[in-house]
Amino acid sequence: MGSFKGHALPGSFFLIAGLWWAGKYSLWYATLRNKSLGSTSTRLASRSTQRRLEVIEGSVTLFFSVVGMLAEQFVADGPRLHLYDYSEHHWDRLHNWQHSTMYLFFGLAGAMSLIVHTTDAAPLALDRLMLAIAFFIEGFLFLYHLHGRAMLDVHVHQLLLFCVFGEAMVSFLEVFHRGNMLLELLRASLTILQGSWFWQIGFVLYSPSGAEWDQKDHNNMMFITMCYCWHLVFSLLIVSVLYCTIIWTMTQHTPRLCKGYLTKKENDGVLHQMTW
Amino acid sequence: MGSFKGHALPGSFFLIAGLWWAGKYSLWYATLRNKSLGSTSTRLASRSTQRRLEVIEGSVTLFFSVVGMLAEQFVADGPRLHLYDYSEHHWDRLHNWQHSTMYLFFGLAGAMSLIVHTTDAAPLALDRLMLAIAFFIEGFLFLYHLHGRAMLDVHVHQLLLFCVFGEAMVSFLEVFHRGNMLLELLRASLTILQGSWFWQIGFVLYSPSGAEWDQKDHNNMMFITMCYCWHLVFSLLIVSVLYCTIIWTMTQHTPRLCKGYLTKKENDGVLHQMTW
Amino acid sequence: MGSFKGHALPGSFFLIAGLWWAGKYSLWYATLRNKSLGSTSTRLASRSTQRRLEVIEGSVTLFFSVVGMLAEQFVADGPRLHLYDYSEHHWDRLHNWQHSTMYLFFGLAGAMSLIVHTTDAAPLALDRLMLAIAFFIEGFLFLYHLHGRAMLDVHVHQLLLFCVFGEAMVSFLEVFHRGNMLLELLRASLTILQGSWFWQIGFVLYSPSGAEWDQKDHNNMMFITMCYCWHLVFSLLIVSVLYCTIIWTMTQHTPRLCKGYLTKKENDGVLHQMTW
Amino acid sequence: MGSFKGHALPGSFFLIAGLWWAGKYSLWYATLRNKSLGSTSTRLASRSTQRRLEVIEGSVTLFFSVVGMLAEQFVADGPRLHLYDYSEHHWDRLHNWQHSTMYLFFGLAGAMSLIVHTTDAAPLALDRLMLAIAFFIEGFLFLYHLHGRAMLDVHVHQLLLFCVFGEAMVSFLEVFHRGNMLLELLRASLTILQGSWFWQIGFVLYSPSGAEWDQKDHNNMMFITMCYCWHLVFSLLIVSVLYCTIIWTMTQHTPRLCKGYLTKKENDGVLHQMTW
Repeated sequence: MGSFKGHALPGSFFLIAGLWWAGKYSLWYATLRNKSLGSTSTRLASRSTQRRLEVIEGSVTLFFSVVGMLAEQFVADGPRLHLYDYSEHHWDRLHNWQHSTMYLFFGLAGAMSLIVHTTDAAPLALDRLMLAIAFFIEGFLFLYHLHGRAMLDVHVHQLLLFCVFGEAMVSFLEVFHRGNMLLELLRASLTILQGSWFWQIGFVLYSPSGAEWDQKDHNNMMFITMCYCWHLVFSLLIVSVLYCTIIWTMTQHTPRLCKGYLTKKENDGVLHQMTW
Repeated sequence: MGSFKGHALPGSFFLIAGLWWAGKYSLWYATLRNKSLGSTSTRLASRSTQRRLEVIEGSVTLFFSVVGMLAEQFVADGPRLHLYDYSEHHWDRLHNWQHSTMYLFFGLAGAMSLIVHTTDAAPLALDRLMLAIAFFIEGFLFLYHLHGRAMLDVHVHQLLLFCVFGEAMVSFLEVFHRGNMLLELLRASLTILQGSWFWQIGFVLYSPSGAEWDQKDHNNMMFITMCYCWHLVFSLLIVSVLYCTIIWTMTQHTPRLCKGYLTKKENDGVLHQMTW
Repeated sequence: MGSFKGHALPGSFFLIAGLWWAGKYSLWYATLRNKSLGSTSTRLASRSTQRRLEVIEGSVTLFFSVVGMLAEQFVADGPRLHLYDYSEHHWDRLHNWQHSTMYLFFGLAGAMSLIVHTTDAAPLALDRLMLAIAFFIEGFLFLYHLHGRAMLDVHVHQLLLFCVFGEAMVSFLEVFHRGNMLLELLRASLTILQGSWFWQIGFVLYSPSGAEWDQKDHNNMMFITMCYCWHLVFSLLIVSVLYCTIIWTMTQHTPRLCKGYLTKKENDGVLHQMTW
Repeated sequence: MGSFKGHALPGSFFLIAGLWWAGKYSLWYATLRNKSLGSTSTRLASRSTQRRLEVIEGSVTLFFSVVGMLAEQFVADGPRLHLYDYSEHHWDRLHNWQHSTMYLFFGLAGAMSLIVHTTDAAPLALDRLMLAIAFFIEGFLFLYHLHGRAMLDVHVHQLLLFCVFGEAMVSFLEVFHRGNMLLELLRASLTILQGSWFWQIGFVLYSPSGAEWDQKDHNNMMFITMCYCWHLVFSLLIVSVLYCTIIWTMTQHTPRLCKGYLTKKENDGVLHQMTW
């Protein structure tokens, strides 16, 4: 994956996933707020909509993971399913294999959420658990991926681990706090962060402009670390903007929610139950 | 334990334990689903069945741990309960002693679950706590077991620590989230992973085919890391296949559960309560 | 920020923040206790007061963060928004930029809590989540801030990380245990600790008296470590004194609470529900 | 504290504390079980007994901590409150000062639990929080205590950290799961472990028999690690024996509890609620 395209591609995937999640969960939260005083029937309705969205998400994830695996295997310089090069007695293009493995786990997560939301065979939280495992494995493979690289190269990938393991932790927490909207939005932001950081890595290590970074300069490392925080700010802002627009557009159709304090009191209950 | 047999034996134990757990918990989950609308009497019935299964499990664990301890002590090259070799002034076969210690803790866990499920002297969650301690001690001893070995040797054992400590953590979580079926199945998968990884270690370090691995080659380490993830996929698949067959066979006798959405709505409640 | 003033300034900020929090939460706890048997209307009243306090807090945080960012940029030797020095091809005053970044996140936290408590757009726990992120980023930047400094210098900053990450963890826990008064007071104490420790760092590294510390002496490190604990004791004492005075002054107006055991029994319920 | 007595003394303290806790919590659990079907009045009664026990415990802790601090300061070679030796310009007997600091925090924990259980000024969980802080500080000081010692010396103290930080974590968990008997007994076992391990350290490093351990021998480290596990087994056994005797003696006076299954069913509810 030592190329600009090789980092831009997954970056874009994660960016899209993050935006999708931010949108999806804001939407649910908005409907839930409006329905909070409604009848249970309406709630069931929104639940069936949720189910459909989840099914779509699951199938898309599954599809792109399979595509990703095939791409890693059959691109120009791919291993074409050969694992060991017997002629020269060494493993064949392990990086492609590792990336296929990462895709494999995300594919599993997709398939699992598909099963969970189409049949009633398994508890709902299973999709979060598989997602947590997928993110953990991604971080786990990156962890043993950095042996013997230049300092800056190692550092930018280590920074990546923060958000990858962060996402794994958040998804695992969601197994127990399912429907906690803050965790869901946090996951979305971290995913956007991961996506944009992949792009950043591409620009730093394989800058298309051809500009070389000094891999040994400690100032570069300090700047990159700070830059990482800026990416986080950027992702948090995107998520909140997306969130506010959706909430705002939804509340237009339910003027009941703009009455200030008294209504606020009523809603506190809902907000409360939703954040615990 | 520096032999192929020495790794294959515990490996098989853990494989069997994992499969047993996967089956047991799937069975309970299936009965619980079918009973979910039934009377409390039926639920109590299934609870007494649970109790019997637990008792059997506890006694088997206890038995094999004792066998394991005796084996470690009295095999051909065992220390035969001698701890210190006064003639040459050094500790005698510490590895066997360490393995006996590991077995000892699993034996304690078995005995404890036996007590918890036969008498009503202690809270139920105690069996999980002892299991967590047993797994923690296993990892703890492995941690200080690796001093001054070859790189690859250390690496394969470090990978083992991930699932051992993972199991300890999951079991500890179960103290507070008892009956959370996802944690139970996760523990089962990690146990299968541990079992199959023991076999893998045997094949890598003491290959019966006599093929030598280059202990210094970084590519080998990268491959082994990836291989570990494949073992995880494999164990996850086994557990889900087992789970699905059991759920499927059970639901044959309760056609009530194949009505699609409406029934699904009804079940959501159950699934929910069961995953939190 | 390599100066005495540079450490004294943030230190004072954190000291004030810690004292404010200690006071605020003690006040709420006191009111909640007195109202515990009162009508819901009174409780709503105190809740609206809470809201006002939160709004004030948010705006003050926001204001000082912006001031801090501007100060870091436009002080005598500030980068004046120049990030890269093209003449000499190196990053320009990265320390000031890093500190601006830290202020930026605290500013975000302030803005977020302002939004959460003025509108009903988002769940309340969001303010804690942003606070946790802000503290985490502060620690995160300090973590990669210490490259190639003297042993003692690194050590005093590492000690700082304990309370910074501690505050991040506590704030994150508050997302799930909102209103747990112990976590709130713990956060207050850790903030006071951080503040006073900043002062300590100033005195150790840039002592105004001009006294030089031997940066290599291990005894100095051992003393500093112990000194850190004394700062913690000091901050715990301040918080408890503040807490007791407030509780005491409040209970003067509600003699009902000084009846000893029977009343105690009644209150146990409240205390209970408040600490879980 | 570089002496046999210096390790035996705190060891005995922790042993006694652990035994006391094991007894206390078993007693409460036994009463709670017998009262489980009784009236609320009886429960209040047992609660006031609890209060008295807690008060005694708090005062004893406080007393011995103060004694400990004075002892550390005024023993033959104590610093006598001198912190800095101006004649030779170095810190004066930092070890004694560090130990005084540790005692100080345990004293604070004792005082706090005294306040919590005599007045109704603060939430009950505060005593656990202070206990967690006290254990954390003990571990924290040991952590920076080991610089430049022999390998074995460092190792035995590192092993100590496992149970010290374990106790800190368990106590912190108790803030949120107060009354979870398993956590309480686990804390008791870890305290006994700590106590007996202090004795072990004394025997290893300052053996009264004068036998010298080879500080460089890796086999010694492996043995010590295993020995640590045996201490854990030993402490677990002590706690369970103590627990069983108390439960058994209590149940003698309540024959209602020996009816096997049906009664078991009734109790399950209680056990359940008590372990979550």
